[in-house]
Amino acid sequence: MKRMLILGGTGETGSWFARYFKDKGYDVAVWGPSGKVDVAERLGVRFAHDLMAEAKSSDIVLVSVTIEKTVEVIRQVAPLMRPGSLIMDVTSIKSEPVQAMKSYAPVGVEALGTHPMFGPTMPSMRGQTIILTPVEEKTGRWLAEISSLFQSDGANVEVLDAQEHDRIMAVVQALTHFAYIGIGATLKALQFDVSNSRRFMSPVYEIMIDFVGRILDQNPELYASIQKNPQAAAVRQTFLSQCMRLCEKADSNDLEGFKQMMREAAEHYGETHKALQRSDRVINARIGEREGRGLDL
Amino acid sequence: MKRMLILGGTGETGSWFARYFKDKGYDVAVWGPSGKVDVAERLGVRFAHDLMAEAKSSDIVLVSVTIEKTVEVIRQVAPLMRPGSLIMDVTSIKSEPVQAMKSYAPVGVEALGTHPMFGPTMPSMRGQTIILTPVEEKTGRWLAEISSLFQSDGANVEVLDAQEHDRIMAVVQALTHFAYIGIGATLKALQFDVSNSRRFMSPVYEIMIDFVGRILDQNPELYASIQKNPQAAAVRQTFLSQCMRLCEKADSNDLEGFKQMMREAAEHYGETHKALQRSDRVINARIGEREGRGLDL
Repeated sequence: MKRMLILGGTGETGSWFARYFKDKGYDVAVWGPSGKVDVAERLGVRFAHDLMAEAKSSDIVLVSVTIEKTVEVIRQVAPLMRPGSLIMDVTSIKSEPVQAMKSYAPVGVEALGTHPMFGPTMPSMRGQTIILTPVEEKTGRWLAEISSLFQSDGANVEVLDAQEHDRIMAVVQALTHFAYIGIGATLKALQFDVSNSRRFMSPVYEIMIDFVGRILDQNPELYASIQKNPQAAAVRQTFLSQCMRLCEKADSNDLEGFKQMMREAAEHYGETHKALQRSDRVINARIGEREGRGLDL
Repeated sequence: MKRMLILGGTGETGSWFARYFKDKGYDVAVWGPSGKVDVAERLGVRFAHDLMAEAKSSDIVLVSVTIEKTVEVIRQVAPLMRPGSLIMDVTSIKSEPVQAMKSYAPVGVEALGTHPMFGPTMPSMRGQTIILTPVEEKTGRWLAEISSLFQSDGANVEVLDAQEHDRIMAVVQALTHFAYIGIGATLKALQFDVSNSRRFMSPVYEIMIDFVGRILDQNPELYASIQKNPQAAAVRQTFLSQCMRLCEKADSNDLEGFKQMMREAAEHYGETHKALQRSDRVINARIGEREGRGLDL
């Protein structure tokens, strides 16, 4: 039976993976800084009271702590691991953890940057994307093993360089979150009554506003730390300057300029009509569901 | 048989309502400034060659031209109408058209501001919201008749004061579009490869990015004119200033300040967890659909 240690395994994401690997037949131990033994009991796994011994005897050590603490935890735990074992992290930023695993994992220990692009509210990884960022000089048999495991559960597994991962995620995650949090802050500043406004929304706006609420509902710690992606600052700055340009055109009634910006953005985006069709399907599914459930929104 | 004239009936929204009222048994005539008789033929309705005679003999005149032209078209056509008839518009801004209908419709002619909150790509009004803004001194039997008609087809009909409509839509429409178009402009400025990035997206990001594409796919004229909502400038300004505040906190590594803004926004939003659950259902429906269709995205 393979042994696995999950650092931060008492947190939401860590618990999700504890359940996942336990179901796969792993002998899982979790450890969390606040010593929540009851969480381990609920999960039906061991609590790693002797952290150092556990790290030494594990086949996989999975680091699931905050982005801020990830590098430090890797620095402390990786050197304890035995040859043939694997260290993984599951943070949303990859260049720094990958560098840390490369630096601190001893010869013979493999390392794999991992970014599951879904939150612990998802029932399974079916249909979800997981990005793996291999670590130079630390990649061997485990990459294929973990990749096959996740794929066998229906995940879309993508393998990517850590730097490229961060460049893409600065848009896919940091920018998207930033814009939605910006909308949420605006609703507050305007004292806009969100729940009353639902009466006046079509499904397309309901879906949009639900995604604002979705992000505001989640752990602010995670969302703040995603903004620490080394490439995110430049992306935020570009977003602000493009919004200012759009705003100037709208304010000065330069509708032609506004439309021109939209057209150029559409041309760059490409295949906007497919996006329209996909979003139509999402909207129609939502309408069907709402009718089935008798408007319990 | 009731007679109906749709001004701008050769456009997409006008054509949608031409089909709708034709199906309801109305004798529909359409008119468009570019004289597209072939569109009328395709719709199976008459083209209003003699616009003035048609306006005089119609039970309903529906104005479906651009926001810019709506007031002028109302000014020209409303005075021709006969007592007992109804003039409606279908623009996304309501205070100015409602004022124009109030000013130019003769005594005995009813008027009804109408805002269908869906685009002409929707197959029906089932599950969609339609806002009616009654016009002072011009509201009689037609309000209930039109309201019942739309409700019988499954629409969610809401009745609202025109000023209040514009105040709410400055957020629900203008702000939401503005943020999405801003993201689209940012993707262009960064030369970010959207279609390649789909490989690295979880369903939650795919849905978000599809809504950016959805808006960019549609008529820029409509989206530019929605920004002309008299209340939209102040909302855009608030959005910009909130985004700048968020950006300053992220740039200066003030994660506590960033988290505090998120928490305050969440508190104001209220019931974020319900939003999370609803968006989870949207995401799960999307995953199910994608699997059924064999990843034809």
